[in-house]
Amino acid sequence: MSTKRIGRQTVVLQNPPSIIGHACVVGKKEGEGPLSDSFDHINEDSYFGEATWEKAEVAMQKHALSLALNKASIPPSKVEYSFGGDLLNQCISSAYAMRDSNIPFFGLFGACSTMSESLILASMLIDGGFADISAAVTSSHFCSAERQFRFPLEYGGQRPPTSQWTVTGSGAVILSSSGTGPYITHLTPGKIVDAGIKDANNMGAAMAPAAYDTLKTHFDDTGFPPTYYDLIVTGDLGSVGHSIILDFFKSDGIDLSAIYQDCGLMIYSVDQDVHAGGSGCGCSAAVLTGHILNGMRSGRWKRVLFAATGALMSPTSTMQGESILGICHAVTISIEKGG
Amino acid sequence: MSTKRIGRQTVVLQNPPSIIGHACVVGKKEGEGPLSDSFDHINEDSYFGEATWEKAEVAMQKHALSLALNKASIPPSKVEYSFGGDLLNQCISSAYAMRDSNIPFFGLFGACSTMSESLILASMLIDGGFADISAAVTSSHFCSAERQFRFPLEYGGQRPPTSQWTVTGSGAVILSSSGTGPYITHLTPGKIVDAGIKDANNMGAAMAPAAYDTLKTHFDDTGFPPTYYDLIVTGDLGSVGHSIILDFFKSDGIDLSAIYQDCGLMIYSVDQDVHAGGSGCGCSAAVLTGHILNGMRSGRWKRVLFAATGALMSPTSTMQGESILGICHAVTISIEKGG
Repeated sequence: MSTKRIGRQTVVLQNPPSIIGHACVVGKKEGEGPLSDSFDHINEDSYFGEATWEKAEVAMQKHALSLALNKASIPPSKVEYSFGGDLLNQCISSAYAMRDSNIPFFGLFGACSTMSESLILASMLIDGGFADISAAVTSSHFCSAERQFRFPLEYGGQRPPTSQWTVTGSGAVILSSSGTGPYITHLTPGKIVDAGIKDANNMGAAMAPAAYDTLKTHFDDTGFPPTYYDLIVTGDLGSVGHSIILDFFKSDGIDLSAIYQDCGLMIYSVDQDVHAGGSGCGCSAAVLTGHILNGMRSGRWKRVLFAATGALMSPTSTMQGESILGICHAVTISIEKGG
Repeated sequence: MSTKRIGRQTVVLQNPPSIIGHACVVGKKEGEGPLSDSFDHINEDSYFGEATWEKAEVAMQKHALSLALNKASIPPSKVEYSFGGDLLNQCISSAYAMRDSNIPFFGLFGACSTMSESLILASMLIDGGFADISAAVTSSHFCSAERQFRFPLEYGGQRPPTSQWTVTGSGAVILSSSGTGPYITHLTPGKIVDAGIKDANNMGAAMAPAAYDTLKTHFDDTGFPPTYYDLIVTGDLGSVGHSIILDFFKSDGIDLSAIYQDCGLMIYSVDQDVHAGGSGCGCSAAVLTGHILNGMRSGRWKRVLFAATGALMSPTSTMQGESILGICHAVTISIEKGG
């Protein structure tokens, strides 16, 4: 019998895993932003020393995982299962990054929600008694994403104000059944929500309804008021999606403005001209595994609701007139094991 | 502490979930093959009444899930979590198939290993106490795959003898914490194995080393001799990969020929001219959710080791000179709860 579910779709972990290592690697633009001090490594070369953008993204993911393992003081051979995914067709960044790892691997596709999706599953494997050490890794790269989803960089197309900038970044988290926290205590996996948005240049609006659905469900299922948290972050709703979330909750009589932020708004400054904000799997991953977890360790935040958001679509589905599907997975991270 | 792991990477489920419903939907060519009586629905129209191949694949997946739920006598609202993925860029078949389901969804990318990967995770969620009912769904469609990975059908390109035919098929499994079996008892998630094969027309050879690695690890971890099973099936190694597996085990002094089969060899007859055999997520899914599980229910097999195999690559990685990565996830299915 499922003893750990509460409400509609939330899980309370009975043996909350501890985050024993985390690291992020980013590119030049991210390194010039407001969170520059929080990244473990900033690579000035967008190619990361490789011949192609895709191989660059592979190198970046490998480096993030390696750094996270170093910080956890464990070798790759101790990682029992790993979860990873990215934006590229057939998720090749993640597969080739894990090629030589010798770690049993679960490939995921959650688009930009992958950091949460992977943390949820990696946590469940520990709490369920299937592993003591698990890893969650994801990435995105501006250049590989642009080429695949839009145009080669040389095209020089104009970007509308609602568009977002794909972060060049990778984040890795190592979880353990033992440790001193921060801990993952509650999980709210999300449902697909279709708000009928077809504009691929307005992902924030497409994903916001899914984020609202998951966040609201999380609060309803747990009984936690939003103020249970010191910080609530979505992954990459950007300025458009962030304001939509505030509006949705305002309609419910809840003012989230003091505690709600979005990684896409945190990772770049306004004068970096990214329009609506950062996006990509690497956006939420790099902000979580640097700024947020560092902040929790230093005492800035005690409880964070981390809710990465994804747009499930492809250029093909868009060309066939489909709307853009949203999904949002939420994870409670707390410095206390009890939540 | 992880109480359920044995050996290097295998898990023994302490509360083995029961398969309470399963169904498969296939296309015309599959319906003309040797397993025609085993499919729940054969659709003569490759478009499944839709305007595009991709929307056809969505319709096929939705139908398979719907049939499986009917056979389990449960409504979609009782499914607590669902796992799904497919071959298409950004796994759009699975996402759009689950769009209106209202079921919390974990998107996966395991290529043709998705049926096993999804069963593993869906089982862990039940055994770990996170859910009572979970679903695992996957699909492939010959036309959508050809267009994406190779050429539009009108191109009429020649296929070499080692090439395989992507199955137009979808399979869905509903798992429950209570039921009368068949049960899922042991899980061996796989590692990525790179044998250096670069020929995208020889997937069987590319994936066989990963299948060997997972199968051998499963036997080593569990202590089961291969003859513990009445049937061992890989997903889609085809004739080339199947013979490689026999050779590998023969080198270990083990003759698997009496009990080892491959879904890609089972789903089509030789005179259907598919060269090395069937492939695709739908290959192992359609054979499992029809022929194999029906056979278990009728008493033909008591214990089956189901090991779907995937090639992790994309046209981009191949064009960039990368080798094709293999992965294989294995699942023990038994009519007895004790395995």
